[in-house]
Amino acid sequence: MAKKYRALAEHYAKAIASGSLGKGERLPSLRDIAVLHRVSISTAVEACRLLERQGYVEAKSRAGYFVIDAMPLVKRAGAAAVSDFDNANERIDPADYVGVHERISVTLARGTRRPMKVDLAGAVCAPELYPGAALRDNMLRLLRARPRVYGTHPQREGVTKLREAIARCSVSRGMHADPETILVTHGCSEALSLALMAVTSPGDVVAIESPTYFGILQIIESLGLKAIEIPTRPDTGISLDALEFAINHMGRIQAVVCMPSVQNPLGCSMPETAKTRMIELCEKHNIALIEDDTYGFFLPNPAYSRPLKAWDKKGNVIYCNSLNKSLSPGLRVGWLIGGKWHKKIEMLMYAVSRHREEMLQLVVADFMAGSAFSRHMKRMNALLKQQRTQLVEAILGHFPAGTEVTCPDAGLLLWVRLPDGKNTDILFDKALAEGIRICPGSIFSNMDKFNDCLRLSCGMPIKGRVESAIRTLGRLAREL
Amino acid sequence: MAKKYRALAEHYAKAIASGSLGKGERLPSLRDIAVLHRVSISTAVEACRLLERQGYVEAKSRAGYFVIDAMPLVKRAGAAAVSDFDNANERIDPADYVGVHERISVTLARGTRRPMKVDLAGAVCAPELYPGAALRDNMLRLLRARPRVYGTHPQREGVTKLREAIARCSVSRGMHADPETILVTHGCSEALSLALMAVTSPGDVVAIESPTYFGILQIIESLGLKAIEIPTRPDTGISLDALEFAINHMGRIQAVVCMPSVQNPLGCSMPETAKTRMIELCEKHNIALIEDDTYGFFLPNPAYSRPLKAWDKKGNVIYCNSLNKSLSPGLRVGWLIGGKWHKKIEMLMYAVSRHREEMLQLVVADFMAGSAFSRHMKRMNALLKQQRTQLVEAILGHFPAGTEVTCPDAGLLLWVRLPDGKNTDILFDKALAEGIRICPGSIFSNMDKFNDCLRLSCGMPIKGRVESAIRTLGRLAREL
Repeated sequence: MAKKYRALAEHYAKAIASGSLGKGERLPSLRDIAVLHRVSISTAVEACRLLERQGYVEAKSRAGYFVIDAMPLVKRAGAAAVSDFDNANERIDPADYVGVHERISVTLARGTRRPMKVDLAGAVCAPELYPGAALRDNMLRLLRARPRVYGTHPQREGVTKLREAIARCSVSRGMHADPETILVTHGCSEALSLALMAVTSPGDVVAIESPTYFGILQIIESLGLKAIEIPTRPDTGISLDALEFAINHMGRIQAVVCMPSVQNPLGCSMPETAKTRMIELCEKHNIALIEDDTYGFFLPNPAYSRPLKAWDKKGNVIYCNSLNKSLSPGLRVGWLIGGKWHKKIEMLMYAVSRHREEMLQLVVADFMAGSAFSRHMKRMNALLKQQRTQLVEAILGHFPAGTEVTCPDAGLLLWVRLPDGKNTDILFDKALAEGIRICPGSIFSNMDKFNDCLRLSCGMPIKGRVESAIRTLGRLAREL
Repeated sequence: MAKKYRALAEHYAKAIASGSLGKGERLPSLRDIAVLHRVSISTAVEACRLLERQGYVEAKSRAGYFVIDAMPLVKRAGAAAVSDFDNANERIDPADYVGVHERISVTLARGTRRPMKVDLAGAVCAPELYPGAALRDNMLRLLRARPRVYGTHPQREGVTKLREAIARCSVSRGMHADPETILVTHGCSEALSLALMAVTSPGDVVAIESPTYFGILQIIESLGLKAIEIPTRPDTGISLDALEFAINHMGRIQAVVCMPSVQNPLGCSMPETAKTRMIELCEKHNIALIEDDTYGFFLPNPAYSRPLKAWDKKGNVIYCNSLNKSLSPGLRVGWLIGGKWHKKIEMLMYAVSRHREEMLQLVVADFMAGSAFSRHMKRMNALLKQQRTQLVEAILGHFPAGTEVTCPDAGLLLWVRLPDGKNTDILFDKALAEGIRICPGSIFSNMDKFNDCLRLSCGMPIKGRVESAIRTLGRLAREL
């Protein structure tokens, strides 16, 4: 259960995030907070300290707590009003997935066929943001020490070292993981796929976020599952009211797949109270909860927005993660903590893909064993914060009036909605012709809900070619 | 269709393999062959030339063709008679696979928990048989040239180079593969698993060899399929009569999975006439044919015992292979040619495991691009031929009278049957206690048919500790 001070901190975090409390404004005094919310002074103190650790406020000696970050969640070009990407009156309907996979594949494949000048579609950062050289040097050193490694069968030992390193790094996400329970996978896609294989049978219904990472839609179709898309907002993430409604009225739901931290594509993170409610809801209805924490390490203070798994006492959460986005796009190292399905998933994994290559695991284990990983993430997150702001400003400056763009506090992805229902599939084609790749909104849902949206990555420095690409995109969008 | 001279050559190959024509014996003259089999002289010439290329006979100037290899298919300790592992009166029954996966996993896991002195269970050769150092050096060179590779997303180019190298090497298997149709997988297990996912739905029935590679049983259970085990013999492989019977009488069979070349565990290869019959049978009944060619490169003349895929004109064969056994146990590089299911498999693969790590593919591509791979296989196969003979002799010398052992002409696996129904699960336990690991026959079937069998690997030089382990196994088997 979330403690009282956490709920209180969230109340203010939300006020700050939505712009109700602006940059430089003072929080109410501790005494006022205590009276206002009927809590003790010590609870008020704890809440303010948490807000401070989370980077929302700073304490000024004797003067109280002041807001230091007041980025609204969504900005709209040419208008002051803050929108919330209103998603009211959406239909909720479990649907067979037929063809969505192909539609996504075709879209993605078309994007790779032409020579690309600027790629704003891939959720990947510029090479200079990753410690590629350090990883390469680790690999050279390890290979020199083991000249015959490719002539020998992978040892379990390598895996153990990586598991231990992952367990250590999990602490910085505010969770504890026993190395014995960690299964190393071929990226997060394999982890999610194994998780769904373990808890569903073809024809089963799975609840997913809407919009969601398109890879989830592909896995769902691959496994012959049906999906219910649950409205998901850029402030609080997946709507638990809608999820509960679906659970009560739409027939058996076998699993929920979600990204509670830095959701792809919205960049939102669920409030802590929502996380505990989510856990309880799924436990109560015996629904497996599959958590994709791919972007968790991108949080400014990863330990203060913990994954669902940190609250999971009954083993009902399957936790999936990967280092593909955070540490190295070139390595395919992911992992999974399977809770009560651990043994089943381990067997499925062994049957489907058997051993992992050993050296890549050791390279990563070496890097994650010390403080290099957290230093790397700190540096990367600081750069991404700048680039996010710059990309938001560029979009607001060049896109047509009425365009909405998310302003998430973490990650490398922005979600943009064009005004007047302008179709981003057409924009995708026109951009391709100019050598610019974007992700059209249509591939983030099977319900034609986001055909006026697009996802852009701020992984590359927003200058030169990238800046000019945004200008071009803005022009193309205005011409639609 | 197989040509006449091929059928004729096979007739004599079989006679040689079974020992009917002994080493040094002369084949009938070309004229006698022509009269005897009612063929033209030129057909007789072609047949003899094929036998020569296949390494069965050698031509002596003006004297005719003489047998150079007369290893019987199966030898029995303490008896002259050649057995054929008689499998008559077997039941054929499509069965749900429940628990076989766990049984196999538990067996394999138990084998890894103790410190092992001699591993005769793994289908893997001694490190000195693999070009580990050359692969490592390739990797060092490639990494030096691309210091930032781990900071960048995998390029399609790397995959293309490997596909082209695989296509080139496929020629030495007597088949032609278009690089565009090759999908690079995470070993052969992923390839087989994707193939089965593409052509079946849970509950479907699949025909498999019996005994079969236990990994197939695990995949079948993972995917919720049923299996019919088709008797398979150490001379001609899977029984097509039994398969046809099953097709006609056992209800819809969705796919056949088989290893036509150097079967695991029997080491047998199907005659060419059987291959064409198999292709026709499956085409006629619209049954997908999934071919596992993992050990194909272990054939003494790989081009003269071609894979089923070489005959496949209608895209009904899904071809799976890997370099795990032949080139490097440490790398996980496999591939698949999907025939008419290519697009579906490509989509499934992308959904389940997305991109492959790039450098490992390039390392392999470099090695396979020139003649290094075929030179390596030639050397390895020559060593394995010695080691197979030595292991057979050691088994016949130390195991109880009546023990039968296969004498395959390729690969690293021997299949042993103990006399008097002695149980090899018990032998497995007793051997483990002595630090020796073997594969008990029980994991090669779900029908309790092979509980008196075991699989041994001759991948390590048969001397010193290995020789003494065989002596120990023989003693333990006698004591059962």
